[in-house]
Amino acid sequence: MRGLTMDFPLTLNAIFRRAELVFPRREIVTRRLDRSLHRYTIGDCSQRTRCLAGALASLGVHPGDRVATLAWNQREHQEAYFAVPLMGGVLHTLNLRLHPDELAFIVNDADDRAAIVDESLLPLWNKVAPRTKVRQTIVIAQAGAPLAPRPDGSVEYETLIAGGAPFREQEDPDERSAAAMCYTTGTTGKPKGVLYSHRGLVLHTFGVSLSSGVNVSEADVVLPAVPMFHANAWGIPYATTMLGAKLVLPGPHLDAASLVELIERERVTIAAGVPTIWLPVLRHLDQARVAHDLSSLRQVVVGGAAMPQATIEAFEKRHGIRILHAWGMTELAPIGTTSHIPPEMADADDHVRFQQSAKQGRPVPFVEIRARNEDGLVKWDGRTMGELEVRGPWIASAYYNRDDCGDLFTDDGWFRTGDIVTIDERATVMIQDRAKDLIKSGGEWISSVALECALMGHPAVAEAAVIPVASAKWIERPLATVVLKPGVSASADDLRAFLAAQFPKFWLPDAFEFIDAIPRTSAGKFQKSELRSRFKDYQVA
Amino acid sequence: MRGLTMDFPLTLNAIFRRAELVFPRREIVTRRLDRSLHRYTIGDCSQRTRCLAGALASLGVHPGDRVATLAWNQREHQEAYFAVPLMGGVLHTLNLRLHPDELAFIVNDADDRAAIVDESLLPLWNKVAPRTKVRQTIVIAQAGAPLAPRPDGSVEYETLIAGGAPFREQEDPDERSAAAMCYTTGTTGKPKGVLYSHRGLVLHTFGVSLSSGVNVSEADVVLPAVPMFHANAWGIPYATTMLGAKLVLPGPHLDAASLVELIERERVTIAAGVPTIWLPVLRHLDQARVAHDLSSLRQVVVGGAAMPQATIEAFEKRHGIRILHAWGMTELAPIGTTSHIPPEMADADDHVRFQQSAKQGRPVPFVEIRARNEDGLVKWDGRTMGELEVRGPWIASAYYNRDDCGDLFTDDGWFRTGDIVTIDERATVMIQDRAKDLIKSGGEWISSVALECALMGHPAVAEAAVIPVASAKWIERPLATVVLKPGVSASADDLRAFLAAQFPKFWLPDAFEFIDAIPRTSAGKFQKSELRSRFKDYQVA
Repeated sequence: MRGLTMDFPLTLNAIFRRAELVFPRREIVTRRLDRSLHRYTIGDCSQRTRCLAGALASLGVHPGDRVATLAWNQREHQEAYFAVPLMGGVLHTLNLRLHPDELAFIVNDADDRAAIVDESLLPLWNKVAPRTKVRQTIVIAQAGAPLAPRPDGSVEYETLIAGGAPFREQEDPDERSAAAMCYTTGTTGKPKGVLYSHRGLVLHTFGVSLSSGVNVSEADVVLPAVPMFHANAWGIPYATTMLGAKLVLPGPHLDAASLVELIERERVTIAAGVPTIWLPVLRHLDQARVAHDLSSLRQVVVGGAAMPQATIEAFEKRHGIRILHAWGMTELAPIGTTSHIPPEMADADDHVRFQQSAKQGRPVPFVEIRARNEDGLVKWDGRTMGELEVRGPWIASAYYNRDDCGDLFTDDGWFRTGDIVTIDERATVMIQDRAKDLIKSGGEWISSVALECALMGHPAVAEAAVIPVASAKWIERPLATVVLKPGVSASADDLRAFLAAQFPKFWLPDAFEFIDAIPRTSAGKFQKSELRSRFKDYQVA
Repeated sequence: MRGLTMDFPLTLNAIFRRAELVFPRREIVTRRLDRSLHRYTIGDCSQRTRCLAGALASLGVHPGDRVATLAWNQREHQEAYFAVPLMGGVLHTLNLRLHPDELAFIVNDADDRAAIVDESLLPLWNKVAPRTKVRQTIVIAQAGAPLAPRPDGSVEYETLIAGGAPFREQEDPDERSAAAMCYTTGTTGKPKGVLYSHRGLVLHTFGVSLSSGVNVSEADVVLPAVPMFHANAWGIPYATTMLGAKLVLPGPHLDAASLVELIERERVTIAAGVPTIWLPVLRHLDQARVAHDLSSLRQVVVGGAAMPQATIEAFEKRHGIRILHAWGMTELAPIGTTSHIPPEMADADDHVRFQQSAKQGRPVPFVEIRARNEDGLVKWDGRTMGELEVRGPWIASAYYNRDDCGDLFTDDGWFRTGDIVTIDERATVMIQDRAKDLIKSGGEWISSVALECALMGHPAVAEAAVIPVASAKWIERPLATVVLKPGVSASADDLRAFLAAQFPKFWLPDAFEFIDAIPRTSAGKFQKSELRSRFKDYQVA
């Protein structure tokens, strides 16, 4: 028997309409390239969004067409986040850290029709556009941007929306139609496009907004330092719009001093970004001669890579800043788990609480998890490692334009994350490794991530990455590559002794290599593939 | 173009699975009929729920069959909330305050197959069951219940689940299939059945759980004083399960002393119920000789009828208890709006804040609102009255088994609430009246609710209800019926003068009648139809 409930589709259109009607006076702040602050309201933003949507349609963008963006976290990006799906298009955010070759592949694979590009990124775009079929570049003029020629047929963003007949309400799209797309660039293989439906993004917005997600309310002031070109900025632009929170966009200024200043000035309550953004912030705060007032900040959401427990502790103990660890992937839109402290641990001692915080946490509502190793599904005992598999209403079911990715999904339709995890009896996920980075030593699994996080808790270590190297006896053994902090030193023996206090003997790295820097991907994560190739001839007993 | 997102249905099954896996140790507390407290965990509850689901199937309940409940807020009711939909059935909660005639009509209209009945309610059920086709009565034994014969073919709840093969996971149902049903009993016409889909209830759970809804988190301890037989207890049983909050069920003990004691003992953080539950609580707290420690209570959610501003103020100023006004209807599953203070008013003076709190508030995400009067859709100016119309993904699209209710929906599919409201430029809804209670005086609309709420702010007034009476000159004029507090007095002139300070002259009641009590419906609301018939021959100039 069917329920008798309205057939009301879950679309970004409805989120947009809500904000326009309920929160027109709420503020959106952008730090521009020239460091000036731009302020306007959700009401202003909505009006311009409608104009952009109308103008895109008049440019010949049709329902289903992909519209690329190459931009920072700035108000025009926020406008595009809603304008493109509003008029039926698919918002395709391009990662401005990628190589032009990769970008050209991605733009062509997605078959983007138009692109909205910040003027400061024209030098990059000009290397990409001629190799694609993009017909229209919409340039966001930016004071202080380097001089760069404009592609043929380009139009200024402000000119475009000034001439656009505002988009008028029509029937909402089917909730299963595509609204946005983002490519995931692994360290191997071609980038793969994830195509988000309206329904998936709306439900993800609910998940992010809940107390068990990022916990967003109207009273919040949210600063996404995570780029809007990276996995929907973790859903923050949608969540702040749905709930009427104030949005603070840092533009291209992601250095520690700029972020701290912006948090202090705008009384930010929630900030979000990858660990590589926050480590310099910690140093900045530690070294500040004048104390900063960050008392407004009730939570920093960290994801994209694990933040070491020592760093989480340092933020809270030295600066009163709570870290909320989250785990996700582009394929999950992206949030899958968050590491809120369960109520029964709220009064536990610091050690227990920080250990829990350093894990990836428990699934948000409607994300289901399980893990599998060679013997089948693993027990939730907090010890047995397996590859994490997930399913839920905002998780990718396939990649765009690719039919060779079947092995990334199980036969019963779960997504294989490639993360090697343990799950405990509270459903707490702890990432031990990427499947491809896991060290398999004599039939036992060793977590490179656990070793790295521990090493980064040593006072002399700035960064560390652990990779497998060949072993005649054990097939693979761990090698630790270590970047020391300037002006301090530690020997391999010191570090081995430090680790020996925390791990079984067979986990301890056979060798330590001191290097200048850990290579990183465009998303700021450790690029272990490069380390592996650098040390490919390494051999231990 | 369709998005590439998993086709993962939104079902109560998924909420149940989540709680079972993530929050197995979280507590559920029930106060039983004999006043003893029963405690167990979500893990225990889940196991018993699976047994109940399995047992119902073995009793011959088929997918789509309606299973009635006649019970208090107690753990077995919580078990049924999930067990019935889990095995494909439709949970049909019966209002134990109704007359047996009405209940018999409802049970027959819904064609209930089985009923789960608390032993204390057998005297009522025995008047209903013989007039229905219910084949199976499942009796929840209750120490202290009055002796009552058991219907033929009845089985004990505990016996049933002890013998049930636990329900095993199978494919989740279609999200649009029916999961629950509740009858709305207006003061006119036959009761009408609202049939909730899994999808609608899941999305409502998201809406309730959000910061802009009731704002539920895992750390909360939630006491629904609103009955589980009344509009899904406002979605609380689903929300606490999805988020792992502790649930405290008061059983049949809804008197002020029992509620206060339970809140204090269990450190309740959120309590919810109609104003008629909370008014005695206020008196109890005012008169308490020993101070109660209700410091855990961060929010009392009030809906079902308007709570007067003076009462909201009294709770906060005298006892530090914040009231969250909410508005809803059975047809909305039931939550539509909540009266959170917008951030820009957070620092406003008390008067402004309490005035805002006393309104019904702004819509929760995905509930859309508009209001209409004889001239069409009304402006959101906070002054123009119109009938509130709503739409959204958890709102009824029709009534069960009725094809004569077409006029309750607009041609474009919005639900006509029958509430006369104003909407302001922040989307704040303020109920002025039920459409049928509105006083139409010489072409102008007068809000009976506004007058009542103001009267109830007078120190001598316990309760007041305002109804229209015939006027030769104005067609209708307001008559105020007033219940004075014991031991104090006020004249009609006193009250008129009190109102004159707040309302235009033509709103002031032409007459005041002092009565012993305001008649109430089974849901505890003022039954104005009875007052109107009592004063039907009243005539003013």
